[in-house]
Parts: sequence; structure tokens; C-alpha cells
Amino acid sequence: MKKIINDPNNVVAETLKGLEYANDKLVYVEELEVIAKKEKSGNVGIVSGGGSGHEPAHAGYVGKGMLDAAVAGNVFSSPSPDRIIEGIRRADSGKGVLLVIKNYSGDIMNFDLAKELAEFEDIDVESVVVRDDVAVEDSTYTAGRRGIAGTIFVHKVAGAAALKGYSLQEVKRIAQKACDNIRTMGMSMSACTIPANGKANFELGENEIEIGMGIHGEPGVEKTNIKTSKEIAEVLLKHIFDDKDFSGKEVALLVNGLGATPLMELYILNKDVREILETKNIKVYKNLVGNYMTALDMSGCSITLMELDDELKEMIDEKCETSALTIN
Amino acid sequence: MKKIINDPNNVVAETLKGLEYANDKLVYVEELEVIAKKEKSGNVGIVSGGGSGHEPAHAGYVGKGMLDAAVAGNVFSSPSPDRIIEGIRRADSGKGVLLVIKNYSGDIMNFDLAKELAEFEDIDVESVVVRDDVAVEDSTYTAGRRGIAGTIFVHKVAGAAALKGYSLQEVKRIAQKACDNIRTMGMSMSACTIPANGKANFELGENEIEIGMGIHGEPGVEKTNIKTSKEIAEVLLKHIFDDKDFSGKEVALLVNGLGATPLMELYILNKDVREILETKNIKVYKNLVGNYMTALDMSGCSITLMELDDELKEMIDEKCETSALTIN
Repeated sequence: MKKIINDPNNVVAETLKGLEYANDKLVYVEELEVIAKKEKSGNVGIVSGGGSGHEPAHAGYVGKGMLDAAVAGNVFSSPSPDRIIEGIRRADSGKGVLLVIKNYSGDIMNFDLAKELAEFEDIDVESVVVRDDVAVEDSTYTAGRRGIAGTIFVHKVAGAAALKGYSLQEVKRIAQKACDNIRTMGMSMSACTIPANGKANFELGENEIEIGMGIHGEPGVEKTNIKTSKEIAEVLLKHIFDDKDFSGKEVALLVNGLGATPLMELYILNKDVREILETKNIKVYKNLVGNYMTALDMSGCSITLMELDDELKEMIDEKCETSALTIN
Repeated sequence: MKKIINDPNNVVAETLKGLEYANDKLVYVEELEVIAKKEKSGNVGIVSGGGSGHEPAHAGYVGKGMLDAAVAGNVFSSPSPDRIIEGIRRADSGKGVLLVIKNYSGDIMNFDLAKELAEFEDIDVESVVVRDDVAVEDSTYTAGRRGIAGTIFVHKVAGAAALKGYSLQEVKRIAQKACDNIRTMGMSMSACTIPANGKANFELGENEIEIGMGIHGEPGVEKTNIKTSKEIAEVLLKHIFDDKDFSGKEVALLVNGLGATPLMELYILNKDVREILETKNIKVYKNLVGNYMTALDMSGCSITLMELDDELKEMIDEKCETSALTIN
């Protein structure tokens, strides 16, 4: 295993410490694996989190206009409720906290437990669940659809609504609209290696890719030979369009890398995606390309579309300033 | 070869087209492989470029406060003078243009030829050459030291000086000071695969890494077994400190990934780098962590330090807004 790490069992703590060093507006809560803003926002707090291994998600999105705190579990493992309640406390300015949860059974259970703990502390907590992956219905760790890269757009939209001073119920309504409007489909070209395990978590043949694989290596819909970028764009978008018709709509587009895929390839894919969207009269209002939600050292990509209305466009346009995404 | 591409011979054009789609303030000049701002700045223009395969360098740094134009060659090949002169034209607002050149023999020759062409068009052109890599003196494609990830800081500093309305001579002076103050050292854990070739460009053993390897796979100083992050930080920083004493100084720090190394590992390395810098009373004023100057799908990293004085701190603090780096 060739990785730049020290102790395989200590990668999460060291990752978050390294992030804290790089961003002087953040504080890292040791042992509890929480990254939070040093200064409370005074607005509704936004908290997200989940298993580690998806960097920059979620700690990289803590900052003005996105998250107030992110809670990390071990690699590919849900954070425990005692960690999540600490994130909630750090995010709360007395106006309540919205939890943005990716739909994995462990996350749902632990965030719900933390929500109950927060009630004892008189913190109002609401939640939205991201289920953007159109690949499969139920999956290895999931009842219903998985939450993947589209979660970034929910962070952005919820964080913008909070920044505007909206109430918890309004922030929740807008975040839920984002969730409802997002679809993602991905594909993988290689396995990833969990540090504490040291071995690839599955095998793909020399020329084989898997369409619809999850960000923990969960099964997708089809194994196939490597395709051209244009064909990959077509296949992934077909799955998205079969689920939701985006024709003639305005959208935010994220072409996301899974960790080991170079930016050159993501830009080439973005070109092909944009050309297909043009043929369907889909207008791209905002276009992100990069490693926003990864799977350790997996190579591959995902495509996310979020349908926009005027309100969501306003949220997308709002400034944000985080380690992984700054818009001014 | 598992890559998200279409025609291996057309990757540069498609990459730049994909970038143009993602950023509506940029224009892509087809055939000439130039990315430029749509609107001229009115200030001194900053132009950089070089072989492709180092994305987001350099096209990703075109925008307010950094580059006015970037010129791309084929993968790992210098751009021709006719491309560079087009970049210069697009960047010139009548106040002259500064070229930021990485020290490779082909780049030096072609940028110099373009500079002569610009004289015929009455455009004042000056240049600085980045030679930040402390690994080796001469190298495969280089007389003298190679220019690598530290180039990003030169873009930032030169772009900030231009944004402040400084004269060409002043912008050059400040950019040259940045060049003089920057040191970088890297290491590689895997080869990269040039799309048109389809094969890894060298071999490393299962547990082997190469200290000081160049961003085109040029030889480094030592092949060794994989080390811990802390040991990697120690080895790379030792090479830097042997060349320049940063003790007690204020610095900008870049912990850079070579393309296939996940952000988790870069953050862990950043933690170890920061802890070593603390022991030498080196104060980090700005800390970037991510894939800023890559080598296709190579895995590995580099560490860059730039010594700061008050003037360089002012340039680092200036706003910028590009595809790959936004500071507000």
C-alpha cells in the first residue's frame, strides 16, 4: 500500500488536523473528529458529516456560506451520535440547526440519535436526507437511494439560505427543494484501498469499468469495457434522464472526480457533458469541475445535475468561503 | 490505458474546451490552445504556459488577479511561439506583458522567440523564469533547476501586482522576488501515462518511491522504500532547508498533489509539514493544500515554501478569482 500516511488507524484525526492548520477560520475538535467554524454565524447552523475517505467532503465545506460544522466518522463508517451532537452544539447560534445527511443506514440512525440528544439541550434540529444517486434503489449500506456528490449542492444551497438569515423552517424547505431537484450518476475505473485494511476493496479487469458504482465500492448496474469520454457522458446522462427529465431546464452541473482521476480527464468529460446538454436545450447556470466528493484513491467520476428555479439560482450565486469551494 | 478521453491526440483541445464551458469569463482560442480572459484587464498582462498534463496549470489560473492568458503545448511539450504570441496579444492592454516561464529548455526557447515576435508588434514584454525545484541542478529537459509547483505562487504574486496597477517593471521586480524566494521539493509514488503513448513512462517497484522526481518523470535524487508521511515531510524539507534557510521566516506553503494522490493524504502531509515548520519557528502566513500543479495521473506530492516580506504578503492577500484558486 503506497499512501502518504503515518498510522493507518489515525488517518482521520491527522487529516482534520492538517485541514485545521491550512484554514485559520476553523477549529478541530480532537477525539470527536469535528471541524467547526471558530466563530458562530449568528444564523441557522448547517451540519453535515459521514464516513471519512470522501475528502474534501465534508470538513472542506465548513466556512462562510456553507457548513458550520462537519462531523467525521472513521473511513467509510458513520460518525457516532456523541460526535454529531458536538457538531450540532458548535453550529448552533440559538436559531436551530439543519442536518444534511447522506442516505446510508448508519448515518440515518446516528444523526437521528444525535437529533434526540439535541432536544434534551433545547436545540431545534431539522434534517434533510440526500438520495441523489440514480444508479440503484437499495444498496449495500442503504435502504433507498445512496447520497453522493450532489450533497455538495445541498451544502451550498442550505448554507446560502442560512447566510441570508432565513429561519430554520425556511432553510429546511429550500434544502429539501435542492434534494428533490438533484440527480447524480457515477462510474468507477479502479478500486480504492482503505488504509486500515491495506488492500483494494474489489477487483476490476484491466480494461473494465463499473457504471453506477457507489462511493464505497458498492455494486453498480453494469460492468463494461472502458469507453470514450463521450460514451461515458452519454451512458451516465441517460441514467439521469431516465429518472428525471431535465430538457429545457436551467441547471447546476458538477463533474466530480473520485480522487485519483486527473483534472484533464474531468475537463474532457465536462466538454462532452456540456455538448449533450446543449442538444437537450439544458442551460448550465453554474458548472463545477473537480474533486468535490471522492472515494479515497478510487479513479472514476460522477455527473450531478440540479434543476434550478429563481430561488435556487439566488442561493447558488451567494458568496461562500470554504477550504474546498470559494465563490465571490 | 483507463482514461476518460476520446482521441488521445486531441486531449489538450478538449481539456481547454471543457474549461471554457465551466468558466464564462474565459475564452478558448482553438488551434492555438490559448485560454484568455474575455475582457482585457487594462493593467499589465500576465502570461504563462507550458506543456499540458499539469492541470489545473496553467489555464486554470486565468482570471482576475492571476493570469490574463495561458498557452498550452501538447502533453509535456512546450507550446510553439505562434501560440505564445497569441497569448501575449490577448493579455496586452497596452501596458506590456510579463511572461512567467518554467525553466525547461523548450519553453525558454519558444517564449524567447515569442518575445521577439511581440517586439515587431510593439508590445513590451518582460519575463521571469521559475527554477524552484531543489532536487537536481541540470535535468533531462533543463539546463539549471526545473520549474515546478512554486510557479503557482509566482502567478499569484505577479497577478496581484498587475491588479494593483503597477508598471511592467514593478510587476517584473516583484515576480522576480517571488522566484528568488521560492523552493520546492517533490516525490513520486507512481509513473504517469501519456495519453498518446498509452504506457507508463517509467517503473517503480511495489513499495518504491522516488525522491525529487520531476513532473515529467525526470530522474530525482534517490529511490527508496515508501516512508511515513512524517518521514516524507522530513526528507523533502531537509532538501529545501539545505538549499535555503527559512528558520524564523514567514512563508507561504503549498502542499501539492501530483494528480492521483487523494486529498486525505495531502492533508496528513500538511499536518506533518506544519509541525516540522513550527520546530524551526517558521510562521505560515498562507497555506494551500491540493492539486495545483500535477503530472497527469502520477501519484505523489511536492512541498513549496516562499519566504514572504511585507510586499509579498500584500500580494498574497490580494483577491483573485480563477477556476483553480479563488481568494476573497
